[in-house]
Amino acid sequence: MVKVGLIGAGTVGSGVIDIYLKNKDLIKEKLGTDIKLSIVCDRNLKKIEYLKNYKIDITDNFKDVINKDVDIVVELIGGITVAKEVIISALEKRKHVVTANKYLLAEFGEEIFSLAREKNAYVGFEASVGGGIPIIKTLRQGLIANNILNIEGILNGTVNFILTKMEENKTFEEALKIAQELGYAEKEPDFDINGIDSAHKIIILTALAYGKWVKMEDILVSGIRDILPLDIQIAEELGYKIKLIAESRIEDGKLGVRVCPTMIPKNNILSSVSDAYNAILVEGDFVGPTLYYGLGAGKNPTASAVWSDICYIAQKLSSGAGKLCEFNNFKNNIPIKHKYDFESEFYIRILAEDKVGVLYKISKVFAEYDISIKMVFQKDIKMEENSVPILIFTHKANYQNIIQAAQEISNFDFVKRKVFICPVE
Amino acid sequence: MVKVGLIGAGTVGSGVIDIYLKNKDLIKEKLGTDIKLSIVCDRNLKKIEYLKNYKIDITDNFKDVINKDVDIVVELIGGITVAKEVIISALEKRKHVVTANKYLLAEFGEEIFSLAREKNAYVGFEASVGGGIPIIKTLRQGLIANNILNIEGILNGTVNFILTKMEENKTFEEALKIAQELGYAEKEPDFDINGIDSAHKIIILTALAYGKWVKMEDILVSGIRDILPLDIQIAEELGYKIKLIAESRIEDGKLGVRVCPTMIPKNNILSSVSDAYNAILVEGDFVGPTLYYGLGAGKNPTASAVWSDICYIAQKLSSGAGKLCEFNNFKNNIPIKHKYDFESEFYIRILAEDKVGVLYKISKVFAEYDISIKMVFQKDIKMEENSVPILIFTHKANYQNIIQAAQEISNFDFVKRKVFICPVE
Repeated sequence: MVKVGLIGAGTVGSGVIDIYLKNKDLIKEKLGTDIKLSIVCDRNLKKIEYLKNYKIDITDNFKDVINKDVDIVVELIGGITVAKEVIISALEKRKHVVTANKYLLAEFGEEIFSLAREKNAYVGFEASVGGGIPIIKTLRQGLIANNILNIEGILNGTVNFILTKMEENKTFEEALKIAQELGYAEKEPDFDINGIDSAHKIIILTALAYGKWVKMEDILVSGIRDILPLDIQIAEELGYKIKLIAESRIEDGKLGVRVCPTMIPKNNILSSVSDAYNAILVEGDFVGPTLYYGLGAGKNPTASAVWSDICYIAQKLSSGAGKLCEFNNFKNNIPIKHKYDFESEFYIRILAEDKVGVLYKISKVFAEYDISIKMVFQKDIKMEENSVPILIFTHKANYQNIIQAAQEISNFDFVKRKVFICPVE
Repeated sequence: MVKVGLIGAGTVGSGVIDIYLKNKDLIKEKLGTDIKLSIVCDRNLKKIEYLKNYKIDITDNFKDVINKDVDIVVELIGGITVAKEVIISALEKRKHVVTANKYLLAEFGEEIFSLAREKNAYVGFEASVGGGIPIIKTLRQGLIANNILNIEGILNGTVNFILTKMEENKTFEEALKIAQELGYAEKEPDFDINGIDSAHKIIILTALAYGKWVKMEDILVSGIRDILPLDIQIAEELGYKIKLIAESRIEDGKLGVRVCPTMIPKNNILSSVSDAYNAILVEGDFVGPTLYYGLGAGKNPTASAVWSDICYIAQKLSSGAGKLCEFNNFKNNIPIKHKYDFESEFYIRILAEDKVGVLYKISKVFAEYDISIKMVFQKDIKMEENSVPILIFTHKANYQNIIQAAQEISNFDFVKRKVFICPVE
């Protein structure tokens, strides 16, 4: 029998308990191994008191879990302070670990996996990316024989929900409010909105696919706060959707990693991913393009992923395996591209006074930065401070040049709002 | 070092060799274990002679592979005669087996897995369903903690390619010809066209998801040969696509399994799967709906799946695991629904003489079979024998009643072609 201790009975943690109480017999039958949830830890003991009825011990001190004779410690506290202490001390005691903590892994993954190797312990983190979608196992096992050429994903359900609402003509603020009311967005949604959560996730996928832990400060991270309903509407008219895309790809022998709102053509399957769903496109040199889609967050899907790791470890243990650690050998010295160094077509939205000479001055800046324009048009609607939107689509250009040009244009006194930039696929 | 013997160097087999020659160092690095392809068997020795340059033995007798000191035997012959002998004799010698043979598993899966359990050998069959898409591992591992509620998939790339061409106004015969010219369809494409290949695949997925091996004769299998461009066009006009859907779902506590051309609304993500792609929608009680998409056939994607199994077994072996067999415990006595017993809305296309009283007689039959009609319309185009198409959409009805009604209507002398029926989602 494999024994499990759970630390953190919040949203995902309570889903993990629910699965145990409802499906433990089914799991045993599929796996051929008995798993027992033997102890649960939460700050709020009241909340977990009912577990005594199921002969599950409870505590409010995580050390009780680690010191108990459990085989697997499940960390679902989140954050990078206590959670880190939990995982390190579990590994020190040679316990296997399962976590959903993308923030912690993105920041300290290399250290944690190195300790796991030293202690011959397994660290499962299926729940850290893509909620219930088994994307981690897919990269580690299903596509193992492939050189991964690129990964492109919608990795944050909150953001995708907000963008879907904005397609229904809501402003960003209105959409965020709905997301908060429905429990999709937290009260302090900055990590989601600003693309940081997506960045944590693409860092993890990059480590798996390319054997390289990329630092947060080395990647471009751009959120959705500056998107106007107008941008969504322009995209729609031209056959695109705006999605927050996290990507990691080999470009000229270097690794380019970034998180950016992006215009996706409607014939790209990612454009049909709406609401709180996630989807990840992975292309390998032999398998070709593949896509994985599902609920990217929330109690039950994430708990399903946590259980997939518990079961995987339990099966290893019951098979009599001696070597338990995995995913520690693959290291790659591929250089990382500078975060502003990538080429794309771009969409640029400028809110400017409606007067003679404006387009001339704007075009001059683009010419100076060697940016070739494919299409310019003006919408006859009045925006803030009586400005009108000037909408520009460029030919392929370097992002470095685009942001410099946008900066200069933003500084013109006839421009009424920071210029918005978004790559076009 | 883990040693592999390959039997069958046809399309998929040569892909397996290509991956070995190109990516073996990468695989070693990711896996932490060295894998050697030590022997390849093919009827045509000339074709594999070049492998001697890579220190790979060759033979035209599969027994040489099984008798050699290989750990894993990869069977890529196909069919159910020699392939069965290969797998049984490999298992008898306690070799692990990797196969892409859906036909064999659908017919003899229970027997093969039972022998594997007895011999403590692992049988990998990721390549049998969905080409490069890791759907088998997803059901066995990623979604293990879920009660699977339903599986719905586009499992045959050839058929999906033909249907996509028919959307471009080709007839079935023209589309098939293009598929054959491009190498997507075989010269004798009956297994694909008639839905038999999809049925083999859904039988395998059903065994994994529900613990039950369903017999071919117990499931409804309907192909795409009777679809006219007109049907595709009607679907398009009403916001649908016609796809060959293989499904397996729990309905009133029973298991319903079937393969049938189906009208899928355009907001269902399966409708956007075109060309030779496959996609599988799996819904679990905790994970919710998930989707897996990729190239469902062909040399390289299928070889990628074969390698995922080789690597999985190699890792088990190098971890020192003693218990190697998996997927043998899960058995379920869920009853199977009669193959004609399911409810759906239906699309029915009748080619009839354009004369008074026809609709009256047709409606009378539907009324007698308790089928309620939602919409009837006639297209003003002349089809074979000067007939015109009468197109009917029903409310929810039982398939048993629908086929009986269709049979009666087909017998009317004013009806010029067998009535075509297709469920509407």
